Amino acid sequence: MKIIGIDPGLRNMGWGIVITDGPRLRHVANGIVHSSGDELGPRLAVLYRGLCAVIAEHAPDMAAVEQTFVNKDAVGTLKLGQARGIALLSVAEAGLSIGEYAPNAIKKTVVGVGHAGKEQIQHMVRFMLPGVQLTGPDAADALAVAICHAHHVQGRTLKIKAQA
Amino acid sequence: MKIIGIDPGLRNMGWGIVITDGPRLRHVANGIVHSSGDELGPRLAVLYRGLCAVIAEHAPDMAAVEQTFVNKDAVGTLKLGQARGIALLSVAEAGLSIGEYAPNAIKKTVVGVGHAGKEQIQHMVRFMLPGVQLTGPDAADALAVAICHAHHVQGRTLKIKAQA
Repeated sequence: MKIIGIDPGLRNMGWGIVITDGPRLRHVANGIVHSSGDELGPRLAVLYRGLCAVIAEHAPDMAAVEQTFVNKDAVGTLKLGQARGIALLSVAEAGLSIGEYAPNAIKKTVVGVGHAGKEQIQHMVRFMLPGVQLTGPDAADALAVAICHAHHVQGRTLKIKAQA
Repeated sequence: MKIIGIDPGLRNMGWGIVITDGPRLRHVANGIVHSSGDELGPRLAVLYRGLCAVIAEHAPDMAAVEQTFVNKDAVGTLKLGQARGIALLSVAEAGLSIGEYAPNAIKKTVVGVGHAGKEQIQHMVRFMLPGVQLTGPDAADALAVAICHAHHVQGRTLKIKAQA
């Protein structure tokens, strides 16, 4: 099962792809789709095309998207919402089922605690996916989302097997 | 000049198209793209495809999108942001320039005051576009955005002509 994880952002849309092989996890690729400039429409188009290209190249079976942190800054929330809409659209257009995980749930799965720093996440992603070259913190976060989804899917599969 | 106006919403994405003919304004079409269900990704895909179909059918020259009202409810702001991202993407993908207007600016242009109710907007849209059949309040709001953009563009054109 190939899973794409996405960490939504208007400036940097992080993405990371892993494959589950029974209980094992293998890294496939990770990267960032970057957008800049004053005009929001063309920026969203750059993010959309970038993600669509990644999905077309790697053909994942499932997707997982980080639930945007709803902060006190309404303008920031709106910007993030717009980027998140693009992330969800790109995977929905590819017909993928989408898992959504809150940042704390992702950290708990990958690091073991709900409140972990960026460095700790990168450290654990490197540990879980030996030999991985991280494009940056946003790509590491995206791989963490993919790992989180893989654990949930594997957990479900193991339960189903135990019941059978 | 054919202008599409969009009033972004996750449940109802209002759209309306007008043509400017010198200082005159003519109605072309208006409608709503509706999405429902629990899964956000497929809902955003429905909105995106719906708007792309409208743009493909009517081939507008310019677009105008209502600036989302950033309210105190962060979850609502995030939802609206996601829908707004889809609206901006659909017009950017069609290569249209995008005007963005705050609700108050739209009301001021169409009704004359910044704080007007839905009924007042519908009344003025009907007055400015004689014979128009409104699909609903969201479509009326979308036509109001298009009218607002038309006035701004015509204002610019008149100024350029006066300077020439």
